[in-house]
Amino acid sequence: MAEDRKVVIVTGIPGVGKTTVINTAVQMVRDEHNEEILILNIGTEMFEIASERGLIKDRDELRKMTTAKQREVQRLAGEAIAQKAKTARVIVDTHTLIQTKNGFLIGLPEWVSNAIQPKTVVLVEADPEKIAGRRTTDETRTRDAQLTDEIDTHQRMCRAAAVSVGTITGATVRIIKNREGKVEEAASELASTLME
Amino acid sequence: MAEDRKVVIVTGIPGVGKTTVINTAVQMVRDEHNEEILILNIGTEMFEIASERGLIKDRDELRKMTTAKQREVQRLAGEAIAQKAKTARVIVDTHTLIQTKNGFLIGLPEWVSNAIQPKTVVLVEADPEKIAGRRTTDETRTRDAQLTDEIDTHQRMCRAAAVSVGTITGATVRIIKNREGKVEEAASELASTLME
Amino acid sequence: MAEDRKVVIVTGIPGVGKTTVINTAVQMVRDEHNEEILILNIGTEMFEIASERGLIKDRDELRKMTTAKQREVQRLAGEAIAQKAKTARVIVDTHTLIQTKNGFLIGLPEWVSNAIQPKTVVLVEADPEKIAGRRTTDETRTRDAQLTDEIDTHQRMCRAAAVSVGTITGATVRIIKNREGKVEEAASELASTLME
Repeated sequence: MAEDRKVVIVTGIPGVGKTTVINTAVQMVRDEHNEEILILNIGTEMFEIASERGLIKDRDELRKMTTAKQREVQRLAGEAIAQKAKTARVIVDTHTLIQTKNGFLIGLPEWVSNAIQPKTVVLVEADPEKIAGRRTTDETRTRDAQLTDEIDTHQRMCRAAAVSVGTITGATVRIIKNREGKVEEAASELASTLME
Repeated sequence: MAEDRKVVIVTGIPGVGKTTVINTAVQMVRDEHNEEILILNIGTEMFEIASERGLIKDRDELRKMTTAKQREVQRLAGEAIAQKAKTARVIVDTHTLIQTKNGFLIGLPEWVSNAIQPKTVVLVEADPEKIAGRRTTDETRTRDAQLTDEIDTHQRMCRAAAVSVGTITGATVRIIKNREGKVEEAASELASTLME
Repeated sequence: MAEDRKVVIVTGIPGVGKTTVINTAVQMVRDEHNEEILILNIGTEMFEIASERGLIKDRDELRKMTTAKQREVQRLAGEAIAQKAKTARVIVDTHTLIQTKNGFLIGLPEWVSNAIQPKTVVLVEADPEKIAGRRTTDETRTRDAQLTDEIDTHQRMCRAAAVSVGTITGATVRIIKNREGKVEEAASELASTLME
């Protein structure tokens, strides 16, 4: 496919080491291809668009918009990202599913995904036990097993969400394992997806 | 998000104890918030709409409609539910995937989900072995292991279906575990989603 | 449901024995119902449409089209399949997710799925270890465990993709296990879905 899409959405649940993988990959592309990757964030784009249009004055107000208005701003943010991707290779650093006490929030609903038109949705994953270890403090150590189980469920559901985005947009879906002590390997895989 | 959506879709495969969780949660909301939750069913709404429009005379005829006509009635039922949710908090008691001998039927296709515009899709889940135990009679006890495996698969696929509905509609997705002897805990989680 | 849809999409990852299951099922339908099943392929349909319209001269050029143009040809291929299904029972022999070195390609994106309007998406599955065994040569035998794990992941993600297609189109989703030495059983299940 003569690929004209340049946005790679990079997702991963807290504790997988997503930021390190992204930063290492961006540096690799800089070193090996002399090219700069633009790292974007949906929330920031939303804030900029809503401010420009005089809809809000500060970032807190974003959350207070009606669902319909917020959806509209999300869509516009997606389009702004697609626009920026016309002149640069872009990473969108975000989440497929955000865990809250009331369930999983959808990070990439249809109207955002379709506006962005990503080339690839990357799932940065790590071993659930390792993630649990990073998140666990001494006082919560007793519930490690349940936490590991919840992390495993979260990570598996993120896969389903990424596949759903792929089905809607045609984006490829790539799992990148961030193995303990092997961040260079993970970053190298991300770099190859960026330069594909 | 200033939440203006009031429909919570509650799903769960046969044997998870969904009805008990729903009834207990509704009672909790009644006791603690003095509020009545409307429990709706897609099939009933479909029947009402199709009858009103003179399309059918009894419920059996629903199944005999063409796919295109049935889809239209499903969409109208979804809209009727969304309409009722303007003046009340609503539970839609339904299924994500219905197991039949010819595979899984989709309980929440895109056109129904988009018409309902749910706030949350809840997956009531239970331990596959416990569900198998509840479904198993003496004569089938020998194939317990395979049944447990099938139940596990069904439950996991329901998660994917819920995530797909979430991606299309923006609804949050919440897993509520109905643990043996702890229906109050599960109901309390559902009550908090209802009142969120 | 008065079923007017006649396309069954049959998917399965390399090594599950999909072709044998399809051919055996088609023969069963021929023997038992004296009916011929048309087996179609999305790539072939795409090539025919693009050739007819003078867009390409050979199959290689398909891959060199822009994403937008390729998507259009995919959609037209889906419509051609739906058209052929008006006068015959049809199997579309394809993939839900195609594994490449840069991640999973989406075999059934929304615009193709909606154009085809399948009755059922079948997932032909086999035991990951058995698939690994069939794919493994002596020199790679050492990494069997990781391969089995990758195959398991691929197969599970295909389920999510099938459910996503089901949610978008309303198609049922059926898992057919192709157990070692029991291809007749699998074929018989497929035959019943074809004749449903």
